[in-house]
Amino acid sequence: MSRERITLFDTTLRDGAQTNGVDFSVADKILIAGLLDELGVDYVEGGYPGANPTDTRFFTEKRTARARFTAFGMTKRAGVSLSNDPGIAALLASQSDAICFVAKTWDHQVRLALGATLEENVEGIRQSVEAAIGAGKEALVDCEHFFDGYKANPAYALACARAAFEAGARWIVLCDTNGGSQPEEIEAIVRAVSEHVPGDHLGIHAHNDTEQAVANSLAAVRGGARQIQGTLNGIGERCGNANLTSIIPTLMLKPLYAGRFETGISEAALTGLTQLSHRFDEIVNRAPNRQAPYVGASAFATKAGIHASAIVKDPSTYEHVRPEQVGNHRRVLVSDQAGRSNLLAELARLGISVEKGDRRLDALLAEVKEREAIGYSYEGADASFELLARRTLGGVPDYFTVESFHVTVERRHNALGEQVSVSEAVVKLIVGGERLLTVAEGNGPVNALDRALRKDLGVYQDVIADLELVDYKVRILNGGTEAVTRVLIESRDDTGESWMTIGVSENVVDASFEALIDSIIYKLVRSGIRSG
Amino acid sequence: MSRERITLFDTTLRDGAQTNGVDFSVADKILIAGLLDELGVDYVEGGYPGANPTDTRFFTEKRTARARFTAFGMTKRAGVSLSNDPGIAALLASQSDAICFVAKTWDHQVRLALGATLEENVEGIRQSVEAAIGAGKEALVDCEHFFDGYKANPAYALACARAAFEAGARWIVLCDTNGGSQPEEIEAIVRAVSEHVPGDHLGIHAHNDTEQAVANSLAAVRGGARQIQGTLNGIGERCGNANLTSIIPTLMLKPLYAGRFETGISEAALTGLTQLSHRFDEIVNRAPNRQAPYVGASAFATKAGIHASAIVKDPSTYEHVRPEQVGNHRRVLVSDQAGRSNLLAELARLGISVEKGDRRLDALLAEVKEREAIGYSYEGADASFELLARRTLGGVPDYFTVESFHVTVERRHNALGEQVSVSEAVVKLIVGGERLLTVAEGNGPVNALDRALRKDLGVYQDVIADLELVDYKVRILNGGTEAVTRVLIESRDDTGESWMTIGVSENVVDASFEALIDSIIYKLVRSGIRSG
Repeated sequence: MSRERITLFDTTLRDGAQTNGVDFSVADKILIAGLLDELGVDYVEGGYPGANPTDTRFFTEKRTARARFTAFGMTKRAGVSLSNDPGIAALLASQSDAICFVAKTWDHQVRLALGATLEENVEGIRQSVEAAIGAGKEALVDCEHFFDGYKANPAYALACARAAFEAGARWIVLCDTNGGSQPEEIEAIVRAVSEHVPGDHLGIHAHNDTEQAVANSLAAVRGGARQIQGTLNGIGERCGNANLTSIIPTLMLKPLYAGRFETGISEAALTGLTQLSHRFDEIVNRAPNRQAPYVGASAFATKAGIHASAIVKDPSTYEHVRPEQVGNHRRVLVSDQAGRSNLLAELARLGISVEKGDRRLDALLAEVKEREAIGYSYEGADASFELLARRTLGGVPDYFTVESFHVTVERRHNALGEQVSVSEAVVKLIVGGERLLTVAEGNGPVNALDRALRKDLGVYQDVIADLELVDYKVRILNGGTEAVTRVLIESRDDTGESWMTIGVSENVVDASFEALIDSIIYKLVRSGIRSG
Repeated sequence: MSRERITLFDTTLRDGAQTNGVDFSVADKILIAGLLDELGVDYVEGGYPGANPTDTRFFTEKRTARARFTAFGMTKRAGVSLSNDPGIAALLASQSDAICFVAKTWDHQVRLALGATLEENVEGIRQSVEAAIGAGKEALVDCEHFFDGYKANPAYALACARAAFEAGARWIVLCDTNGGSQPEEIEAIVRAVSEHVPGDHLGIHAHNDTEQAVANSLAAVRGGARQIQGTLNGIGERCGNANLTSIIPTLMLKPLYAGRFETGISEAALTGLTQLSHRFDEIVNRAPNRQAPYVGASAFATKAGIHASAIVKDPSTYEHVRPEQVGNHRRVLVSDQAGRSNLLAELARLGISVEKGDRRLDALLAEVKEREAIGYSYEGADASFELLARRTLGGVPDYFTVESFHVTVERRHNALGEQVSVSEAVVKLIVGGERLLTVAEGNGPVNALDRALRKDLGVYQDVIADLELVDYKVRILNGGTEAVTRVLIESRDDTGESWMTIGVSENVVDASFEALIDSIIYKLVRSGIRSG
């Protein structure tokens, strides 16, 4: 049976740019457009040429090879002619393949926000679409507030959609602008509209204000729509747009959809989804959401002992798809609930082969439990766990010895009477028989220590040169400043891989130092360095 | 028209405890159970007594006043009698009002994971339910993998559900254990099951693996189910459980549901939802999700210029509900209209009376905004906020001046070759014209500083003698050890009252010092001490 095509329209660079805290440069936009093009989405909406210098510059060239490069802007204003509307002129002049016009379709909004008559608004839609087509571009129309508009005045909302379609727009996109619609409403309204505009010309643009943007998008498909608009990792204004990173694998891997529909994304591209999602977070400088469906670090992680033994027997028990299909992998968390089966599964994943009956496993399990009892938590610190396992099972060289360190933090008033704070660290290491003494300042004690430690590691310095700390978390495990401190450090290197290490101590500086040292040793082990 | 009741079952303390990185203490569980009880959920599932010491201790007392306090555990094992099953014994002995049994209902799983016959499994369900009822408790049955099981062998899945119902279970909860089911499948299967077990005895337990746990829960309600299981902020294994923090306001505020259904949560309790959500994040030490529906800091934030002016003309344009209904507020990033009224409400709550037109309010608002922009978050630090307000509005004496402090951490090997770590702090204060110099050791730099600071506060020493630090939290606000550090300190005194103070700095020691100083000053202000 031939499958129907679902068209994917990415608006990361346009609606996603409305996210609080996100601010794309032209270089960011070029990079992200390339990643989206490689993934295989059908449209990349790049921004609003004419509205700001970044977007205007971005649209001076076509930025995609496969995807239709799409400019966004308003329909012609009421009261001016097409040729006198500078917004329309900027859109037509942009190096885009397509123009997506946003049009009001809620009568109340037309009167309130545009101050135009209902007929002027419909006429503006018609003329704008015709102008785009006349300029050799494809036209799309985003019908803003369509669902609220349809509930208030279905005849008018439909008249707008129909006018766009009759003028030649390829896609009429129904937008749930304030994000409050529910899936059954979306499905019913899309179905009703599809009696006037064919479903393979209808799109859905959903927002996540009730945590149902994904469900609303799929409900629209059930109702007949064949284009889905969304963003990478669901970024967007307020609670975000529909998350293409979740929608794409659902369409491709769930038989309910995969049996009926196809997309422009290949199975091979799908295996790059996890990496793409994390890379995108890096570009916008956000911590990846560990719980993200399909691509999160925890998406295929199992904690409970009973679940862990079940998952080893039969992965389908707790995995709704195979993690490899989206480029993710299974994690069986080692935690105080852990048993032997957890441990074996985790070692296998780390590529550490050990016989099921090996007595050293008991020693390792006992060590893990003892450490977890005093505050270690290896479920968040893969790299420290791997080091602990390799140490117990044999195989981590003694790269260097820490003789001592000394950290000071001083707060005083300087000669100008200003309050200043200075942190300084001195580290003494023995590396390959050589005694190395380094000192560094930092904006805090841990930063000073980190800098001193990585300033000179003797023969290993080249290997750790690309090591970078990307996250640093501190958790106090019981009340008061005498409490035990747990430090988690996330590190990364030029390969793009990241790893987590842990340190636990009553002393935050000691705990941080332990996690820093583990991170360095892990990097040396991973780089295949044997003792210097 | 009378509305049907939707029952809310919270499993934050049980299934939520499966979250990667979450580790509840008994004290955490007691606190969270209290918050849930206050919110008004119908059931608080507290954990798995008998499975680990924390849960066993938690269930030695009833921990809720209104909600049914629920213990979770497996149905009777095959091959042993009820009285010989220690799991069942622990459940019956727990101080719970209800027991929620998890039962397998997928034939494949029964054979694979339990190694039991299909009939033994059904018999185990029946006997377990009867045992709970016999012990005077209400029984619920979580049907694990129900949807996968139903697709594979509907007759067997139904037989399990029916056995539980016929044995007297109040609720038969259909679980989408691996989180892969789609809303239309959930709706259809719940509808089919409701022909055998009445819908007002059916529950839904959804996971977020395709980002549709909320939609799946509501789809089950459409299919006839009348209990929803979920967690605060959607925590839970892998991608999380259904998010009650999103489901509750949707049920209560969307006419589609509010017209047909009611819950046990009052409108007044709903206005505490945002605060509850953030408080819960503080307890588990996670950064609140700014994009979270309803309760996120960005949920009602508008960035775009055109949207911002539209929202001032007509809030319904970009707000699907009124933010006040869930205790959140509108943020218009260009000109914050809501700031002033928020601030007034907050001051009134703290008992600080100020005229609505007082010009100092603008200064305070500007100060709060500036500080929040660099990382302060007063939502979690009432006492520091009160000090800031009182300072701006006049009224905090200059009790003392910090001239300087100096902290050292040294790690070295002692004469016996053992690794030792020593922290020492020196603080110089001027109190009432007198210069006080104190030194103290501690098991970490912050502890040493805390001890030195409270060792001698001159004329104020008696007042702070009963001050005690009960919690100390550190959060790193952006990646790397150069990041900004936010410290929250909870203090308490003999009156039993506790208060939270905050410090923000690139330097963890500086940030801690700031929060410590605020805590001491707050205590002096609260004790009615005027300048010494």
